[in-house]
Amino acid sequence: MTPIGVGPQQAGRNLDPWFDSYAARTAGLSASEVRALFAVASRPEVVSLAGGMPFVEALPEELIESAFRTMMSEHGAEALQYGGGQGIPQIREMILEVMALEGITDASADDIVTTTGSQHALDLVAKLFLDPGDVVLAESPSYVGAIGTFRSYQADVVHVDIDADGLDPDALSATITRLRAEGRHIKFLYTVANFNNPSAITMSLERRRQILEICRREHILILEDNPYGLLYFDEPAPPAIRSLDADGVIYLGSFSKILSPGLRVGYVLAPHAIREKLILAVESSILSPSTFNQWVVTEYLRQSDWQEQIEEYRGVYRERRDAMDEALREHLPQFTWTKPGGGFFTWLQLSEDLDSKQMLPRAVTELVAYTPGTAFFADGRGHHEMRLSFCFPTPDRIRTGVRRLANVINGELELLDTFRGTTRRTIADTGVVTPPPNIN
Amino acid sequence: MTPIGVGPQQAGRNLDPWFDSYAARTAGLSASEVRALFAVASRPEVVSLAGGMPFVEALPEELIESAFRTMMSEHGAEALQYGGGQGIPQIREMILEVMALEGITDASADDIVTTTGSQHALDLVAKLFLDPGDVVLAESPSYVGAIGTFRSYQADVVHVDIDADGLDPDALSATITRLRAEGRHIKFLYTVANFNNPSAITMSLERRRQILEICRREHILILEDNPYGLLYFDEPAPPAIRSLDADGVIYLGSFSKILSPGLRVGYVLAPHAIREKLILAVESSILSPSTFNQWVVTEYLRQSDWQEQIEEYRGVYRERRDAMDEALREHLPQFTWTKPGGGFFTWLQLSEDLDSKQMLPRAVTELVAYTPGTAFFADGRGHHEMRLSFCFPTPDRIRTGVRRLANVINGELELLDTFRGTTRRTIADTGVVTPPPNIN
Ligand SMILES: Cc1ncc(COP(=O)(O)O)c(C=O)c1O
Ligand SMILES: Cc1ncc(COP(=O)(O)O)c(C=O)c1O
Repeated sequence: MTPIGVGPQQAGRNLDPWFDSYAARTAGLSASEVRALFAVASRPEVVSLAGGMPFVEALPEELIESAFRTMMSEHGAEALQYGGGQGIPQIREMILEVMALEGITDASADDIVTTTGSQHALDLVAKLFLDPGDVVLAESPSYVGAIGTFRSYQADVVHVDIDADGLDPDALSATITRLRAEGRHIKFLYTVANFNNPSAITMSLERRRQILEICRREHILILEDNPYGLLYFDEPAPPAIRSLDADGVIYLGSFSKILSPGLRVGYVLAPHAIREKLILAVESSILSPSTFNQWVVTEYLRQSDWQEQIEEYRGVYRERRDAMDEALREHLPQFTWTKPGGGFFTWLQLSEDLDSKQMLPRAVTELVAYTPGTAFFADGRGHHEMRLSFCFPTPDRIRTGVRRLANVINGELELLDTFRGTTRRTIADTGVVTPPPNIN
Repeated sequence: MTPIGVGPQQAGRNLDPWFDSYAARTAGLSASEVRALFAVASRPEVVSLAGGMPFVEALPEELIESAFRTMMSEHGAEALQYGGGQGIPQIREMILEVMALEGITDASADDIVTTTGSQHALDLVAKLFLDPGDVVLAESPSYVGAIGTFRSYQADVVHVDIDADGLDPDALSATITRLRAEGRHIKFLYTVANFNNPSAITMSLERRRQILEICRREHILILEDNPYGLLYFDEPAPPAIRSLDADGVIYLGSFSKILSPGLRVGYVLAPHAIREKLILAVESSILSPSTFNQWVVTEYLRQSDWQEQIEEYRGVYRERRDAMDEALREHLPQFTWTKPGGGFFTWLQLSEDLDSKQMLPRAVTELVAYTPGTAFFADGRGHHEMRLSFCFPTPDRIRTGVRRLANVINGELELLDTFRGTTRRTIADTGVVTPPPNIN
């Protein structure tokens, strides 16, 4: 007789003959909520406010074609060959110019390592630093892909509170003190200081100084992840934290958002000793990053007015940000959200009685998708928030999407009201209703 | 006062403020001997028989250009965008045709995952399966890049003896029994069954059956790494081990050697449950493999007579293999080496009194480079062997290189003779012989 109720462990063992062979870390490798959404939201009738795909259609293809032609005629054999683990010197020279726009002017091409997108850099840094049980500090909320990667090395992500100016220094100090009292090893502070994914918040210059000061005092490395810094809509972001400290910051950049993610070219700027280890980690992971793609990016940067192209992208995303903001004002005025100064995302704060994760299937039925806030927390929070992305859909689609979303939310609220009318009063009477916390 | 004799640990700490922050696994991440050689041997006057660079000059650039043009005109926006973690379906369909040439005809495109070269696949499989202290079985000798990657997850590589037909089944059984008696966890058997890097040996069909039989009985997964299978010179390699067993083999392929390594496109064919985890591992590591490069490869495979191009490569490498073999016969007839039936490498067996690692600096001075055998063993063996690669240099350069190598070796032997005749006795008596400094 089959026993009733086979646990997931047992089920896995039955389906997978290699179930007992996996490493302990593999248990922490789970499908992200964003990933599951990619499939659902890819049907054309669904307005997806869920993904983080840049609007590459705004890039004139001729720019890539011309970069490719020069590459083939001038560096063909080299572009088709293996390269060094650090990346080709020519792209690293050009990256200095890109980073200068973020305020980093003291870097050397020698201290840059190119990677397969900045996700790869996150993975390599995690591999170099994280032992099981180590702690990574991160904003609350924080980038889902980074949380997943840190966890895949069996580290714990501990969130630090933020306010409208970014990480809260007092919360940071208190968290460090608490964790150290518990005997935990804090390996680094991971921060997306510019136009954060997902919160859209940018850390002020004063805060950057304060956070840096704390990390120096406590000897905590900073991992500054900056894919969105140049995509500002109103005014430039403050200079990168790395521009204020060369020894205590690992800085990550990417061509995914200012050029194209299909090329998978990102980079790390790191202190010497760490840079050396990163090169070894690249070699161990992929031998060398694609010379082909590095040359395409290099020739693109050499030949095109790439700053003008970034200005182009800014215009596209600014218009979409505005469409999103206006639609939210019109359709969901009872809630709060961030009006992003740059980047790809708006962070919407719902009321405590709404659960963005539970509501998602209904939303998809109504042909709109978003990312539940839970994806961006390692500690189970985020049920009353959602990330809305405005990078890919047109302004019209954004308006349609937000209107549909409002329908879903209002439908849910009506349902709750009916429900309250009968059974829920009891709950309010017992004082369990919490007011919605402010995000900004 | 500075203390005399600062240990490497202490030195590291002084130079690197983050020395105490690294993960335990980072200690195992060391520069490979092959890597150090890349720098030395890249001067044009040095004949390098050291690297593993394919001769991409044999690829008509027009084939890449035309694939690129079709990609941009038909899939431009998609090629510049993020893709799925598993890789684009179109390339996975084409990969079925490539694998069919290796005897794998029962695969589904659903069970393929594309990666950033097959090195990336090695890294992902290692990450999924290897806990610290686990064992990977491998041929003796085995691919340096795989050994390094397995070690970077703190696993131990245990070599199994080979003969002219590949892995020795008795040695395999005995090694498994011994390790299990010691309580060790064997996670998989890593094999380069076709035109092995570095030994050049190909496992016979009978051996494939025997090895598979043992691994099935002992419940040991096989990781079959096959970048060279289609580059045979005389007769095709036997069908892939994967063609004999779909459930117990993870199969790795690569476009690096049959097309171009600069594109960094490789792939894994894995049993369902493992494939699922591999996709998550890709996402955690790089979000998605480059759609740009996957489309270039797809259009190349669709438009070109790619089998004819492989035939072209075979011709180039066959001629070089012959040049190497003839030069060895002429200049170093006193030693033994494999005459490769395919692939990129010859494995030269020196006499016991010669140390290939110690001899390398002298060889480089005499303008020839090779890879010492020690690179291909995790257990310190390989001092009396060397890997000679014939893939990149022209036949003329190969002849020059082998002539120079013979000079170095014969010079070394003469020195040893003199040494033996006159001084060695004394030194042996006092025991003061210092080995020359190691190149690493
Ligand atoms: C904050 C952040 N970091 C890193 C990445 C990874 O980007 P890529 O690997 O394409 O450079 C993303 C992508 O969305 C991101 O939002
Ligand atoms: C046996 C073997 N496996 C894997 C690789 C990695 O190749 P790639 O990552 O370029 O596919 C190599 C490269 O030399 C190799 O010889």
